[in-house]
Amino acid sequence: MAQNENDDSVITENGFDEFGHKNDYDEQKKVEQNGSFVHKKEEEEAASVEKVFKHLLVPSWRNQLTIRAFVVSFFLSILFSFIVMKLNLTTGIIPSLNVSAGLLGFFFVKTWTKFLEKSDMLKQPFTRQENTVIQTCVVASSGIAFSGGFGSYLFGMSEHVAKQSSDTSDFKDPKLVWIIAFLFVVSFLGLFSVVPLRKIMVIDFKLTYPSGTATAHLINSFHTPQGAKLAKKQVKVLGKFFSLSFLWGFFQWFYTASDGCGFQAFPSLGLKAYDNRFYFDFSTLYIGVGMICPYIINISVLLGGILSWGVMWPLIETREGHWYKAGLGDASLEGIQGYRVFIAIAMILGDGLYNFLKVLSHTLWGLYNQIRNKRRDNVLPVGADQDSSSSSPELSYDDQRRKQLFLKDQIPTWFAVGGYVAIAAISTATLPHIFPQLKWYYILVIYLIAPTLAFCNAYGCGLTDWSLASTYGKLAIFTIGAWAGASHGGVLASLAACGVMMNIVSTASDLMQDFKTGYLTLASPRSMFVSQIIGTTMGCVISPCVFWIFYKAFPDLGTRKSQYPAPYAIVYRNMAILGVQGFGSLPDNCLLLCYIFFGAAIVVNLTKDLIGKVGRFIPLPMAMAIPFYLGPYFAIDMCVGSLILFIWEKINKAKADAFAPAVASGLICGDGIWTLPASILALFGVKPPICMKFLSRATNSRVDTFLGN
Amino acid sequence: MAQNENDDSVITENGFDEFGHKNDYDEQKKVEQNGSFVHKKEEEEAASVEKVFKHLLVPSWRNQLTIRAFVVSFFLSILFSFIVMKLNLTTGIIPSLNVSAGLLGFFFVKTWTKFLEKSDMLKQPFTRQENTVIQTCVVASSGIAFSGGFGSYLFGMSEHVAKQSSDTSDFKDPKLVWIIAFLFVVSFLGLFSVVPLRKIMVIDFKLTYPSGTATAHLINSFHTPQGAKLAKKQVKVLGKFFSLSFLWGFFQWFYTASDGCGFQAFPSLGLKAYDNRFYFDFSTLYIGVGMICPYIINISVLLGGILSWGVMWPLIETREGHWYKAGLGDASLEGIQGYRVFIAIAMILGDGLYNFLKVLSHTLWGLYNQIRNKRRDNVLPVGADQDSSSSSPELSYDDQRRKQLFLKDQIPTWFAVGGYVAIAAISTATLPHIFPQLKWYYILVIYLIAPTLAFCNAYGCGLTDWSLASTYGKLAIFTIGAWAGASHGGVLASLAACGVMMNIVSTASDLMQDFKTGYLTLASPRSMFVSQIIGTTMGCVISPCVFWIFYKAFPDLGTRKSQYPAPYAIVYRNMAILGVQGFGSLPDNCLLLCYIFFGAAIVVNLTKDLIGKVGRFIPLPMAMAIPFYLGPYFAIDMCVGSLILFIWEKINKAKADAFAPAVASGLICGDGIWTLPASILALFGVKPPICMKFLSRATNSRVDTFLGN
Repeated sequence: MAQNENDDSVITENGFDEFGHKNDYDEQKKVEQNGSFVHKKEEEEAASVEKVFKHLLVPSWRNQLTIRAFVVSFFLSILFSFIVMKLNLTTGIIPSLNVSAGLLGFFFVKTWTKFLEKSDMLKQPFTRQENTVIQTCVVASSGIAFSGGFGSYLFGMSEHVAKQSSDTSDFKDPKLVWIIAFLFVVSFLGLFSVVPLRKIMVIDFKLTYPSGTATAHLINSFHTPQGAKLAKKQVKVLGKFFSLSFLWGFFQWFYTASDGCGFQAFPSLGLKAYDNRFYFDFSTLYIGVGMICPYIINISVLLGGILSWGVMWPLIETREGHWYKAGLGDASLEGIQGYRVFIAIAMILGDGLYNFLKVLSHTLWGLYNQIRNKRRDNVLPVGADQDSSSSSPELSYDDQRRKQLFLKDQIPTWFAVGGYVAIAAISTATLPHIFPQLKWYYILVIYLIAPTLAFCNAYGCGLTDWSLASTYGKLAIFTIGAWAGASHGGVLASLAACGVMMNIVSTASDLMQDFKTGYLTLASPRSMFVSQIIGTTMGCVISPCVFWIFYKAFPDLGTRKSQYPAPYAIVYRNMAILGVQGFGSLPDNCLLLCYIFFGAAIVVNLTKDLIGKVGRFIPLPMAMAIPFYLGPYFAIDMCVGSLILFIWEKINKAKADAFAPAVASGLICGDGIWTLPASILALFGVKPPICMKFLSRATNSRVDTFLGN
Repeated sequence: MAQNENDDSVITENGFDEFGHKNDYDEQKKVEQNGSFVHKKEEEEAASVEKVFKHLLVPSWRNQLTIRAFVVSFFLSILFSFIVMKLNLTTGIIPSLNVSAGLLGFFFVKTWTKFLEKSDMLKQPFTRQENTVIQTCVVASSGIAFSGGFGSYLFGMSEHVAKQSSDTSDFKDPKLVWIIAFLFVVSFLGLFSVVPLRKIMVIDFKLTYPSGTATAHLINSFHTPQGAKLAKKQVKVLGKFFSLSFLWGFFQWFYTASDGCGFQAFPSLGLKAYDNRFYFDFSTLYIGVGMICPYIINISVLLGGILSWGVMWPLIETREGHWYKAGLGDASLEGIQGYRVFIAIAMILGDGLYNFLKVLSHTLWGLYNQIRNKRRDNVLPVGADQDSSSSSPELSYDDQRRKQLFLKDQIPTWFAVGGYVAIAAISTATLPHIFPQLKWYYILVIYLIAPTLAFCNAYGCGLTDWSLASTYGKLAIFTIGAWAGASHGGVLASLAACGVMMNIVSTASDLMQDFKTGYLTLASPRSMFVSQIIGTTMGCVISPCVFWIFYKAFPDLGTRKSQYPAPYAIVYRNMAILGVQGFGSLPDNCLLLCYIFFGAAIVVNLTKDLIGKVGRFIPLPMAMAIPFYLGPYFAIDMCVGSLILFIWEKINKAKADAFAPAVASGLICGDGIWTLPASILALFGVKPPICMKFLSRATNSRVDTFLGN
């Protein structure tokens, strides 16, 4: 789910560095050492992973692609699509779900093979490679739920969101058919664009791809005896919290007869605080997210919430009638809402720009070094002790074996190039039919420069684990928007262009992550590619359907007070409007504040990078921007998650390290999947019977009089 | 707190047998054996408790009565008076609080002496005997909170309760001065009446006094090194759950702006179930009570609730207009409320009568055997191998030592008899001034037969651990009520007589329990007696003051829908009215139902006793009667407590056995003591700011329209 972690919310750069599987693997080892398993031999083996698996046969790439793997992937894809969609539509913060996907994939196939083994019907044992295939497929499929833009550009086109923006002239409501068609014509391009580069990136450049590496370590650990033992326990914990979280969601449902009812409206910090969106909303989903995200993310979100809803908005509201017309209400972009949305956009853009330049310079500098070294190697072909691509005799056993298997199955370059050109042609012909505003020459231009950007993103992601997909998307919004102009439906054209661009670059970096995972688990590049293709195909169907369920079940989707406010939809649409129309419609002083926050985002990031180690205590502007629009309630949930993790780590570090990801995954998955029955109930018009309402004492006595008590 | 456990609700007969300290001690040992402490020597020592303490000096009786002991007792008395009062006023179910009192008493003095020891100022070490003094004092003091009748006869006299009964002619509202005076003149009589019998009961008859024995074991175990270690851990657990429970109470408070608000009104099982009082009310107090009470009590209460509120009341309500006049509302005794109250009374009386006869026959049979044996001993003074009182050489070391110390300090018989006569005289002169309806000759008659009943109760309690105080109280209600008659204020006279009788018999059995505890911990009878006197004095002041706080803070005290419905107040008053007026005012078929349930209570008890071991699965009629009036909501809390305990025992029996009483005590004490700040806030007119309200969807949309959303 690499592209999700590397989305707007920035969460995953650190998300992965600090909490991803790289560490999971270390923790896995740590716990085993705390247990009674450790003996000398094992520690030696840990140094060489492949020696542990030496006795196991690696199946051929065709045998890595089993039907059971894709059946499991299909169901997990539905599960994770629901979770990602719910996250998309509530806050847009999407944590790393790899541990859950890994654990659950392992669990299901393992149970199945165990069962077959007992009844002597097992033909093919469950291998690491098959596990990697599942992981790849699930991540590719649920990735579409993010890059499909259901919480951002795509839903931003709808009439619903348009009505809340300052430009209502142009909209395109979601329809199942065109969404699926759109996703099919844009989602495969990224795969073909970077396939030929896999050897350069993975073997020659030795890019780290922290997420991919971490996933590989996780999968490798599952297939060692101790790892399997721990994984079993983790799955048990996951299952327990899954059930709890699911049942809690179910219980909550009964008390949510209408808006402003139920636990989501619980003024746990008082009514005054509730009015300013400071409350704990009892969402196990975000408690789990808080447990997975690094502390600094959670703190940043909370700080952002305090800064905006605790200080700035109340102050700006005192200027009502001066800075903006009085009586506009809470939802008008010309009033207080304008400050919320545009200042958030300014911070997101500032942070995005800084990180774009940073990753770009890293990329270029890295490339420059690689090429220079390569040239040196060519000049001094013998005895050069560089970490070059030449199969020097210093290669470790692991590296040799991995390289050997990685290079065994090839994907011909003509196939990749041919595929890209063919799909690009189809896409160029089809897209203008879906979006008449998006002219064919815009698309052609995008497809001409996309491979370069895809390469940049895949390379940058390999270096920093940070996919800039949404930043490239924003770039497309502003360029295409400016090119098309307001009169030619620029808003919709730019949102569509954003989708095309995001899909290409995000799938490109995804695929490369998977190649790295495959490299480290001896899975064939071919099986990775096929799995990615199948996963993407699933995603192109599953994600729109899941979105469709939400869209039909919750008619108030995308409005600020809804259960599903889809905050990025309005943000993306307003970015598109800004790109097309400029800053004309902003309320007084809003532009000034935007400049300040845009600059501040850059300065904060710069400081963070310059002051070294202390920098990790400086909050992340991107994370701070999210509650500007939504309010800090989910930040409180996330901080509760952090707090639980913190206390747990204080009490028993080893246990917390081993089981916190499982607990968090359980909480996330349980609440996430509860949305499936919840939306089905909503679709069938079954409404909760009770309203848990919170009234001030004064209002309550009025209500009591009214009800005649 | 022996008399509380042995109250109306029957809870403590089994409460102690199955959950009391006898077992606690066993559990204490069990856990130690699961730990690493066990070695052979220790097990041998366990056989002789006194050998463990051989090296320790037993302080003189004066030195057992330390100032620090009474300071600690004073504060614990306030704490437990609050808890008992809250339990009295909510349901009348009072579990054994000995573990909490024992643990907390031990903890505070131990901390204090540790502190002094460190600063080299400790003059006298903390001994078992001193611990027993504290326990005795706290139990005596908080016992008054029960036997003072604040939830039953005394509050039943008030205008408030009278208005809800069928006889409003006569009432006496609580006033601090007369309550304290009343308690002072009646609470000490019981002590003097049985003091001379202590040797006969404890040494000659060797009565078991299960509660007293269990408390002694608990105290003995605290003063062994391993016991102290475990106690320290238990105190820590208690403290943790105390804080949680207190904070939870505090949090709940904010959402309780008026009646029908807050967590107590949470329709956790749906609105329909809530209307029939089936809901979980989030009370940690009753979860704790459920963890302490034996499973069969909790199940009985739940069954009673289902039978009454789930089946009978809904059925009877369909006869509205036939069996009773339509439109009387929920609170009229001539309507549905009459069925609730009188059927509950019938069951309580049936159960009470059965057990009175049972215990009385046990008592008489036991006495008969004792006396016959004694006579045989006198006939055959040498070589008779009976467990007689003669100091036969077969007495174990423990028994010898205990007997020696028990007989060392004497309380002269003339002092006891003189004390009784003096107090009885003062009391006979004073009481008619407090209650003009209670003529001096009623009192004189009561005081003439009271010593016999006090002896019976003390003896029966020694055999069965079941104090029949409230049954003797009911006896007084009916006899004095019939004697006085309706025209001479019989209702008030009989309630007052009930109080006089209850206080005498309950303090008598208490004192004898304490003598047994003292016997087993080598505490002097004199120090026990003095401690009981001091504790009773404290109770006579503290309990009325605590009640006064409740009475002033919650003006709706005693009404059925209040937070504090004081169910037994209305039950006792109606018993008095029945005694005076007969069955005239009952609605149709109510008398028939009463007979059926009266008979059923006797038959169920009889079956329970006759079928042997399986009998423990048969519910207790007394426990079933409580929810008849109140509704089953607290039964659900208690069953949640049972469930937690059950699961805990499944997971880790040893740990559950060791720490469940501490967890339960923490939950009870935390919520109990929260009522202190809650009532102070109420006294000062500070009202909670928010109402958490539960509305049906239809009502909610009406309210939303009304509020203009």
